[in-house]
Amino acid sequence: MNLVLLFPEDWVEAGRRVRLSRRRRKHILEIHRAAIGDELRVGELEGRTGRGRITHIDDEILEMDVVLDSEPPGPSRTTLVVALPRPPVLRRLLISTTSMGVKKIVLLNARSVEKSFWQSRALFEDALREQLVLGLEQARDTRLPEICLRPRFKNFVEDELPDLLAGTRGYLAHPAESVDSAPHQAGAALLAVGPESGWSDYELAALEAAGLGRVSLGIRPLRVETAVPALLTLIG
Amino acid sequence: MNLVLLFPEDWVEAGRRVRLSRRRRKHILEIHRAAIGDELRVGELEGRTGRGRITHIDDEILEMDVVLDSEPPGPSRTTLVVALPRPPVLRRLLISTTSMGVKKIVLLNARSVEKSFWQSRALFEDALREQLVLGLEQARDTRLPEICLRPRFKNFVEDELPDLLAGTRGYLAHPAESVDSAPHQAGAALLAVGPESGWSDYELAALEAAGLGRVSLGIRPLRVETAVPALLTLIG
Repeated sequence: MNLVLLFPEDWVEAGRRVRLSRRRRKHILEIHRAAIGDELRVGELEGRTGRGRITHIDDEILEMDVVLDSEPPGPSRTTLVVALPRPPVLRRLLISTTSMGVKKIVLLNARSVEKSFWQSRALFEDALREQLVLGLEQARDTRLPEICLRPRFKNFVEDELPDLLAGTRGYLAHPAESVDSAPHQAGAALLAVGPESGWSDYELAALEAAGLGRVSLGIRPLRVETAVPALLTLIG
Repeated sequence: MNLVLLFPEDWVEAGRRVRLSRRRRKHILEIHRAAIGDELRVGELEGRTGRGRITHIDDEILEMDVVLDSEPPGPSRTTLVVALPRPPVLRRLLISTTSMGVKKIVLLNARSVEKSFWQSRALFEDALREQLVLGLEQARDTRLPEICLRPRFKNFVEDELPDLLAGTRGYLAHPAESVDSAPHQAGAALLAVGPESGWSDYELAALEAAGLGRVSLGIRPLRVETAVPALLTLIG
């Protein structure tokens, strides 16, 4: 982790001293190989970032004196709507998307999403949050993305998508012969990425009717975890 | 797999009929759930793509009549030079990079590459090829990338990099405050991506002296498997 994320329950003295145990204590000792007196980057969940100096280590806990004096990196202004991938792909996708600064991720149903994916433990709130925290720690960020589960494609597209698109560029990723060169521009955007086998004709038509314009990385079918970082960069 | 890749030893009748066993037979039956008479996309290693119609299935083998009448997707014109990542990341990176059409990948040493990575079985020729084949099958491609292992940073940068850069744009990925907007342009390029903890000052200086210009996705440290698809798209 490139930043130790601090949670409300970590504070021993509010804003000044934290006490960590388990995963973070172990990671700091075994991966960073840090000792008393060493400084690490830290950040308060939903707040500022800064430095923590280790003041105490024992078999259970690790304490740091903390100074929070910086802002986390700016967010991406793109909302990602993505057809729910299979659980291991979802975990990696949440980490990478969070690390790129996306603050709203809609996991959507589509015809070729397997029904069983919606029953996966990877969608439990704790499991989602675990990946998001890893993504924040990766990118030295502190602000959790919002995750929305939308198992009904039609309801989402008809009832929610129009509001999400108000005043925003909207893109629909779909393989095509030509690579779109740089629709990249400033400002808010919404990007919809289908299942690896593609959106169905009905889904394509519904998303286009809602106002999304097609964008393409070329004719090659790519894995979702490859396509999403590339598309987020393409549309800027 | 989005394409069944055919190897020289598969042909029963050259250019007309193939016999498959093990991984591909199993995948075609269990994942595609294909039966006799069904057609699948196929491609000949280093050659053309087309369709295969299943003519025979038994407990050991599967036979197809094959017509090869199309060209594989065009290659990326970017050469990727990347600090050797840890083995599980390397495997995913080879699949995603191959699927994006990169045809030359240099795995380079850097100060913060762990020595043990160079002893990994993931670098054995068979293990590398397995990932490359998965990447080709993913993207319906047939042309294997060339993989170069370069455990000596200085030798590579001084002896090989100048030739690779002749007539080519060269980029060096390094986190910076601003995101570079679209140096995207046509033509050949070379992209050097460092370890997750970054290039050392010496490495940065050596790569810049060789003629690479810095390019950035912003200040966030990203995992190699997130950064590479984004950077390949950024520089086009």
